[in-house]
Amino acid sequence: VTTEVQRHPLSKCGTYLPSIMGKHPELGEVILNLPFFMQISLWANGEKMDMIHSKIRNYHRVLNMKNGHLARSFVYEAKNGCCMEFIWERFASMAHKHLFVQRVTCHVLSGTAELEWRSGIDADITTNGYRHFQKLDFYEEKKAVSCLATTDLNFQVLLKSTLQFSGQIEEPMVRIEEKQINYAWKHSVTAGNEFSFCKFTSCGCSRDLDGNFFKTVPSELIYAEQNGYAVLLAESEKEWSRLWGNADVQIDGDKALQKGLRFSIYHLLRSNTGFDSRVQVCAKGFAGEAYYGRYFWDSEIYLLPFYLYTNPEAARSLLMYRWYTLDGARKNAARCHCRGARYPWQSGLTGDEQCSLWEYADNELHITADVAFAVMHYYRATQDYDFLKEAGLEILLETARFWLERIDRDSSGGCHLLNVMGPDEYSPMTRDNGYTNRMVKFNLESAVQTAQFVREKSPEQYDALRQKIGLSEEELKKFREAAASLPIPYDSKRDLYLQCADFEEYGEIDINEIWKDRDKPFGFYASQEKIYRSKCIKQADTIALMTLFPQEFTDHQVRVAYDYYKPMTTHDSSLSPAGHSIAANRIGRAADVEQFLHQALKVDFDPEKKGAEDGIHIANCGCLWQLVVNSFAGIVPAVSTQEFTVKPRLPKSVTRISFHLFWHGTQKEVTVSKDEIKVEPVK
Amino acid sequence: VTTEVQRHPLSKCGTYLPSIMGKHPELGEVILNLPFFMQISLWANGEKMDMIHSKIRNYHRVLNMKNGHLARSFVYEAKNGCCMEFIWERFASMAHKHLFVQRVTCHVLSGTAELEWRSGIDADITTNGYRHFQKLDFYEEKKAVSCLATTDLNFQVLLKSTLQFSGQIEEPMVRIEEKQINYAWKHSVTAGNEFSFCKFTSCGCSRDLDGNFFKTVPSELIYAEQNGYAVLLAESEKEWSRLWGNADVQIDGDKALQKGLRFSIYHLLRSNTGFDSRVQVCAKGFAGEAYYGRYFWDSEIYLLPFYLYTNPEAARSLLMYRWYTLDGARKNAARCHCRGARYPWQSGLTGDEQCSLWEYADNELHITADVAFAVMHYYRATQDYDFLKEAGLEILLETARFWLERIDRDSSGGCHLLNVMGPDEYSPMTRDNGYTNRMVKFNLESAVQTAQFVREKSPEQYDALRQKIGLSEEELKKFREAAASLPIPYDSKRDLYLQCADFEEYGEIDINEIWKDRDKPFGFYASQEKIYRSKCIKQADTIALMTLFPQEFTDHQVRVAYDYYKPMTTHDSSLSPAGHSIAANRIGRAADVEQFLHQALKVDFDPEKKGAEDGIHIANCGCLWQLVVNSFAGIVPAVSTQEFTVKPRLPKSVTRISFHLFWHGTQKEVTVSKDEIKVEPVK
Repeated sequence: VTTEVQRHPLSKCGTYLPSIMGKHPELGEVILNLPFFMQISLWANGEKMDMIHSKIRNYHRVLNMKNGHLARSFVYEAKNGCCMEFIWERFASMAHKHLFVQRVTCHVLSGTAELEWRSGIDADITTNGYRHFQKLDFYEEKKAVSCLATTDLNFQVLLKSTLQFSGQIEEPMVRIEEKQINYAWKHSVTAGNEFSFCKFTSCGCSRDLDGNFFKTVPSELIYAEQNGYAVLLAESEKEWSRLWGNADVQIDGDKALQKGLRFSIYHLLRSNTGFDSRVQVCAKGFAGEAYYGRYFWDSEIYLLPFYLYTNPEAARSLLMYRWYTLDGARKNAARCHCRGARYPWQSGLTGDEQCSLWEYADNELHITADVAFAVMHYYRATQDYDFLKEAGLEILLETARFWLERIDRDSSGGCHLLNVMGPDEYSPMTRDNGYTNRMVKFNLESAVQTAQFVREKSPEQYDALRQKIGLSEEELKKFREAAASLPIPYDSKRDLYLQCADFEEYGEIDINEIWKDRDKPFGFYASQEKIYRSKCIKQADTIALMTLFPQEFTDHQVRVAYDYYKPMTTHDSSLSPAGHSIAANRIGRAADVEQFLHQALKVDFDPEKKGAEDGIHIANCGCLWQLVVNSFAGIVPAVSTQEFTVKPRLPKSVTRISFHLFWHGTQKEVTVSKDEIKVEPVK
Repeated sequence: VTTEVQRHPLSKCGTYLPSIMGKHPELGEVILNLPFFMQISLWANGEKMDMIHSKIRNYHRVLNMKNGHLARSFVYEAKNGCCMEFIWERFASMAHKHLFVQRVTCHVLSGTAELEWRSGIDADITTNGYRHFQKLDFYEEKKAVSCLATTDLNFQVLLKSTLQFSGQIEEPMVRIEEKQINYAWKHSVTAGNEFSFCKFTSCGCSRDLDGNFFKTVPSELIYAEQNGYAVLLAESEKEWSRLWGNADVQIDGDKALQKGLRFSIYHLLRSNTGFDSRVQVCAKGFAGEAYYGRYFWDSEIYLLPFYLYTNPEAARSLLMYRWYTLDGARKNAARCHCRGARYPWQSGLTGDEQCSLWEYADNELHITADVAFAVMHYYRATQDYDFLKEAGLEILLETARFWLERIDRDSSGGCHLLNVMGPDEYSPMTRDNGYTNRMVKFNLESAVQTAQFVREKSPEQYDALRQKIGLSEEELKKFREAAASLPIPYDSKRDLYLQCADFEEYGEIDINEIWKDRDKPFGFYASQEKIYRSKCIKQADTIALMTLFPQEFTDHQVRVAYDYYKPMTTHDSSLSPAGHSIAANRIGRAADVEQFLHQALKVDFDPEKKGAEDGIHIANCGCLWQLVVNSFAGIVPAVSTQEFTVKPRLPKSVTRISFHLFWHGTQKEVTVSKDEIKVEPVK
């Protein structure tokens, strides 16, 4: 997905700040890999220590998901026989968001260690092979080292680091090279002795909302130095604990699921600012450069529910991003000669289309209806009428407008959406894609209903919006008509909902024959050309549709669709397994529930598979949460119900699920077990 | 089409050698813009002369199409009032293919001209923004200047120039700069005096077939110096005259058509080596960098007929290119997991796919059947059985094999071709494209019939081929079955052949509303997204099909199709107008014949439109020839008839057409007028 061959393929870590994007000459807007400050290099008795070539044993790496603290411990035996026990720790402070804290502790077990260290800030960094820093300034000041980078889009990022030693050592030297600033220091430690040091880094940028970064960055660094490692960790832990208090889900009976879900929640908590509406959560959870740091439908369909029920303000902020980028979406509609607003398949700073492949940019339309769906979901879950009238309604109306123009009419005036790629990206140009058409109907209907609702409740504000966007009564009528006319492809003989009107005309394909090794994606074995014309699907649109509108489909219909699509679904999309587990749970396919759940848990959380190599599949994290909360515990999403409704379907392995949930502005504690359902207000 | 912003946008001329291609990091194989040697720069009394800023009058540029001689004459008034009359002449020798000859003649009308000249070889050249020369050597030797360029694909190109002066002047200086070698000289001329000089350039490369270019290039240059301008021109003219003798078409009654057709024939003669099967004629006739110097279906469908009937050996050479690139085509079939050979949409050195856009590379399949069609056309026109058994049959069998694998089967076993882009590139993923399916049927049937034919006539050779490619009897049976099963979409109610099975489901579009200015292409006003899902077509597939298989369609069917598709055809393809003129002529739509003919003549030959800015639309040249010879004069192509058949349909403006034609190995002289058809053997 990224085109860069890494300079250091074994250390892919980078520094990312949401919305600090650059302009790549070929790829468009990409999230920047900023100057890297975490590297701490060590030479022991003249030998460079590294994790591949050096003699390392007892290696442990532990991420504490309760407080985001990462510790690596190991014994390092240098070539001259000197043996050292190390602990390398680090965390980004959740309490002081500018601060990053590192600590290295060394206990010399035998021999004498002549140690040489180097650490600082390295701006010799590319993003997808391209240098995005227009200007770099390095300076040393009051023993701290700083790097000020100015990017190609004229953002400024300031990084400032300082060191704190446990004992007396010779003053570190500071060396400024062309694209780096580094401390270098030496000391020698004899057997039985221990030492440690901390590196504090403060980072800010010209897009910060909490004050001028030229002031906050140094003052936060001073705060770090004055308070030290333990205080910083305790403060951060306290903030984490507050977040977990609202978001944790306790699962009894299935330890792997408990761990996997907490891993997902950890990343969902970590990757969202919660308050900055200029950003959403990028497809890789800001943990890698794949998908270039852009925002997809993942935000609205896979992530929003988690935030909606655990942190409604964060959910509001996510949706406000779509309101702030309405102008970009209007531009994007104009790009295909349509009025209204069309959300881009890949969104960045402004809501213009960033995807450079036409088949997605032009055809994967459903994102626009997904945003409208999310607006209604948010409103129905929170009853936040202010949002609805100030932002939501405009989104609903402008997107409805786009659909009206994007719809083609047949000779008898019937509505169709042609050349549509649904969530199943293995069929790029379908006719009347069922998922998309149903979502568009919802979009059109919601626009009409919400317009009527707001007009009655706040006539003046409604009128102001009507004038602002030049809306006519005639248009609302047309929205209603189009919604009624758009077909949802369905074969009544088989009671089967079709992925699209032309799905039956796709070629037959022997998936088992082609798919030699199911540990690799199917797409590895079949050409795009073959996939595009065959009955093989990346993730089943119809299953996704039935999950979003559960009340509109009978169990029989879900069963028929499930059995029809399952043999041709490759699950090549990381969005697929968890969603299929939800469908399997509805129709009581226990073995499938478990198999898909297992697959979903392994998407990132399986060191063998290297799933998290280019970042976290954050949408899968959100979908796992939905699987547990909406399917297992059976909380019916607010978008589908007025009443708070719990219809649990616990899998065998799970005996009890317990969590907190926001609903219509109050927080409930829900406990579901084989025997009882308990819903209580949170004290 | 090219991505380079020209360094000198006003002088787009370049140096191209067929098959000297380079590897562009993003575009794949591209024809290289080689070191440029035609530039001759002049400063008169210290003022640089150029055609934009200098005071120039009486400017004339004359291309003599009989001998390829280009002359520009003008009067240049320098700033100090000195007035000079210039003639700048040049031609590439048709007799000595390494030689390029230039002459500058100056008559000083008034004042004294202090002239400073510079000319040489400039290798400071990019192709599509990229530098392809790995190594450049410049040297001076016996008064000649040389540049030896080694390209990124390790081809070598040697250019050698020398000057010859009419009178005594001071010896020119030679200066070698980083990427240039130049002569510089000065002299002064007073009113009433004249002078002239010649620049001879010899050019060869490591792919030359006529000997070692390190020897031929200097020896040809010596030949040029020794024989001089007049002899070289006469020799070249003689060769041109031989070519015109076989190829000229005389038209009485329509001077514009006569001139336009000769312009086309001129480029068809100029752009084809006629003997080198490692190359075809690139889409721009080697006259520009658009389409990167690659070969398309243009060669087989639009160019081949001209060569077939005027120079059968050249036609054979064109087709042998496809035989030599069979391995590339096999690789290209394997790329989509098919056996057999699939010709690439854009072909270069080896027959691998060079097109970087998947919708063409994957879906525009018809090229493969077009090659098979051309094999049969060639054989039926020439009766060249050796070609058929040695090359043609292998092409037919391997391509048939590909089709068998590319065909999808429906639930009742019926054959379909899915996701097909026909010649109409405005519908990229049609089902059962009529043009393609008919051509594929022809391909499959021809494979079977030719296999039987060769097996009977040359059993041993047939057997050797059968073993070489591992062909089974079973396969031949399958070819026959598939050919019979592939549908040609047709609506019997209307007697209408459909572009594709799903054509009626495309969206309605108001072309007149969108297409504000018909001097610009329709695609300028509509987005690709809209075009791809609408009933608007670039060129009508069905019309092209009916032209290739005229006997299979009734006049009524042509009329119905013509009237149905015409309002939705944008003719955004330069291949479209001439083809539509042929169809209009068949059904007697005189006004349309004329309008489309007029449009076709203007594709390149209209200075206002700048059609030839990036090269010549060589396929349009070939199609114009077919319009005159096959439609107006009515020569039925040999692919459709055993008997030499003439069925003229002269347009009003044309009173007589006369030309020579090869048919089954002999040359005929054909004269067609309103009153008579005369066919005689050429003495």
